[in-house]
Amino acid sequence: MPRPSSDLKPKRQGRPPTIENARDRILDDAARLFARDGYDGTSLSELATSVGVTKAAIYHYFPNKQEIYEAIIVRTLEGLRRHVSQATAGASGPEEALARFMTAHADFFEDHYDGFLTMLVGYGGMENVVMIAEAQKLRDEHEQSLRQIIADGITRGAFRPIDVDVTSRAVLSMLNWMVRWFKPGKGRRAATFAQDYCDLMLGGLRG
Amino acid sequence: MPRPSSDLKPKRQGRPPTIENARDRILDDAARLFARDGYDGTSLSELATSVGVTKAAIYHYFPNKQEIYEAIIVRTLEGLRRHVSQATAGASGPEEALARFMTAHADFFEDHYDGFLTMLVGYGGMENVVMIAEAQKLRDEHEQSLRQIIADGITRGAFRPIDVDVTSRAVLSMLNWMVRWFKPGKGRRAATFAQDYCDLMLGGLRG
Repeated sequence: MPRPSSDLKPKRQGRPPTIENARDRILDDAARLFARDGYDGTSLSELATSVGVTKAAIYHYFPNKQEIYEAIIVRTLEGLRRHVSQATAGASGPEEALARFMTAHADFFEDHYDGFLTMLVGYGGMENVVMIAEAQKLRDEHEQSLRQIIADGITRGAFRPIDVDVTSRAVLSMLNWMVRWFKPGKGRRAATFAQDYCDLMLGGLRG
Repeated sequence: MPRPSSDLKPKRQGRPPTIENARDRILDDAARLFARDGYDGTSLSELATSVGVTKAAIYHYFPNKQEIYEAIIVRTLEGLRRHVSQATAGASGPEEALARFMTAHADFFEDHYDGFLTMLVGYGGMENVVMIAEAQKLRDEHEQSLRQIIADGITRGAFRPIDVDVTSRAVLSMLNWMVRWFKPGKGRRAATFAQDYCDLMLGGLRG
């Protein structure tokens, strides 16, 4: 029996077949290709071949390569923000909240490595003002949640009266720089390095 | 009176006029153009125009753009290594040595910003095995000198028995990530941020 919608909707000529989770699949493969061959080194034809669809099908979802690149960045930041805020929500105190923030950030980075590489190594190439604003909003929220953990720690006496700006920048620098030396699946999880950084930061160097 | 060498040396046809400090001037301008427009976005013609010489003069010193890129990286690392080891040489103890390492690294970064941007944002593009080995040797020496400061601090009881790997990686991550957010000449010196990081690392977060 034909599905009712087949008769009700007019058929567009050349319309690509519906692809399951098409947007996400396109972004996944694009991130993988950008991470491997760079933005300039990746063509939409290669991307279409990788996803297993026609180039027209790609254009059905994204007007051009630049928009795919920007969608990868925003999707990566959305996922990071969601994952880290869920992880920190149930923390019992500032030290645990900081550890959870850092390990959750590192876990998400490792599990979405291609997206991070595209975002952090593809340097400053966003153009769409709406996407730039969205990415900035997500980055600000992520950083703000870290600053809140540090500020809470100071207020509750768990942390010294350290500078919140310096501390949050130091933490994010250690986490973000992982993109330049950490390779997923080659030994320890990124989160174990993040936990080491957290312990070092908490205890300090002085004997 | 003609200089003696003019008569003694055979003249090569088409030989470009001698340029004062030519190699350094080419590398300076190339780093500036790579930092501004990216490696792919910079042509040797533009570079020649910027230096104020012919393209043939550029080819007199470097066979191609790739070799210029690699020479920038090696020259930047040589300078960094020299500058930081001079700064740490006279330190009176582990804490001062660490502070000098971090602030000297940040100073050199700020004063050679274009070279750093070319080196750290132009991702993994070296091809010449000799230059790769030279760059790796310089990076290793730089990192080793930091590890030595940390190890000395532990031996002398100035630092806790912290993990040297984790600590040196944390320090270099904070310094290297500056390339992604710090802009020279827009307020505080990079070295003041490095000193803040150093104080934070030394004292730790715990109250």
